Amino acid sequence: MNDVIGETTNLLRRTPDVLRSLLVGLPDSWTDTTDVPEHGWRPHAVVGHLITGELTDWIERTQLILEHGTSQPFEKFDRFAHADRDADATLDDLVEHFARLRSENLARLAELVTEEDLDRRGMHPSLGEVTLRELLATWAVHDLDHVAQIYAAMAGSHDAEVGPWKAYLGILLRRDDPAAVAG
Amino acid sequence: MNDVIGETTNLLRRTPDVLRSLLVGLPDSWTDTTDVPEHGWRPHAVVGHLITGELTDWIERTQLILEHGTSQPFEKFDRFAHADRDADATLDDLVEHFARLRSENLARLAELVTEEDLDRRGMHPSLGEVTLRELLATWAVHDLDHVAQIYAAMAGSHDAEVGPWKAYLGILLRRDDPAAVAG
Repeated sequence: MNDVIGETTNLLRRTPDVLRSLLVGLPDSWTDTTDVPEHGWRPHAVVGHLITGELTDWIERTQLILEHGTSQPFEKFDRFAHADRDADATLDDLVEHFARLRSENLARLAELVTEEDLDRRGMHPSLGEVTLRELLATWAVHDLDHVAQIYAAMAGSHDAEVGPWKAYLGILLRRDDPAAVAG
Repeated sequence: MNDVIGETTNLLRRTPDVLRSLLVGLPDSWTDTTDVPEHGWRPHAVVGHLITGELTDWIERTQLILEHGTSQPFEKFDRFAHADRDADATLDDLVEHFARLRSENLARLAELVTEEDLDRRGMHPSLGEVTLRELLATWAVHDLDHVAQIYAAMAGSHDAEVGPWKAYLGILLRRDDPAAVAG
């Protein structure tokens, strides 16, 4: 028997520790570059975006599904809410804020949801009907997507420093050309 | 004045902690998928590859540069050494093996290299002349590249579970089409 909630929260509870291990106290020389050269995001913005998810998305939508099913569509996710909100926060502050919110939200998830609820449905404002099972998987994969984005930004900060080895480093080549293949 | 060695080792010493936070004890359902569908690598192979780097590449090449300059080319990096070596090890074993090697190698680096050595040159068997400064930056960015690869593999393990949200998850879309852009 699958334990979808346990397996998903096992991943979700790790992200704050990963971000602490990776970012807290790291010199700015690693964190002041965007993931892609044009319209990219710095790690500061990415952690801010993860905070927005904790504040407005995952648990909010879980509650909507449980209380209103498909009759009340989710609010749209504001992809730029972090810009003003976090302007004065340091990256270390943001990591700790995210960690606190994540911990609270996993406690709320454990109270709210059982395996029997996972096929209940909600209404996404653009994607249409979705299940709670899909929402929880998306919460976890969204973490993975955005932590990987932080990795691309950090690598980009040292694009020039690796010299000719860039030819072997796909994470750098893909910042210039998404379809590039490392040698 | 730049502290290149300090800034680089600051990043390098974090990777074992990140891998522990991310992988140790994680259910197999997250770790049994490759980063790309064809000829991809599971997290087990990626950590094995990082171990090969610690065993045969970074410190080995540092010593060659310091002792022989450009007169003796580096050994080629064996990108598949992990396959036989690690066949019986668990992923958790590999993370701890990597952590031990990384710690030893950073101690050796601190003994071997000062900022004054960074422009010394070595001979890469394919890329030609490279500097010790470039080697150290490559060591760090190589970590970032391969941890990001682990993230792609973990995301891929839940490709089917996110349902229609896949359209927004670049880390999944790029597994199918490297140039895909999330909606």
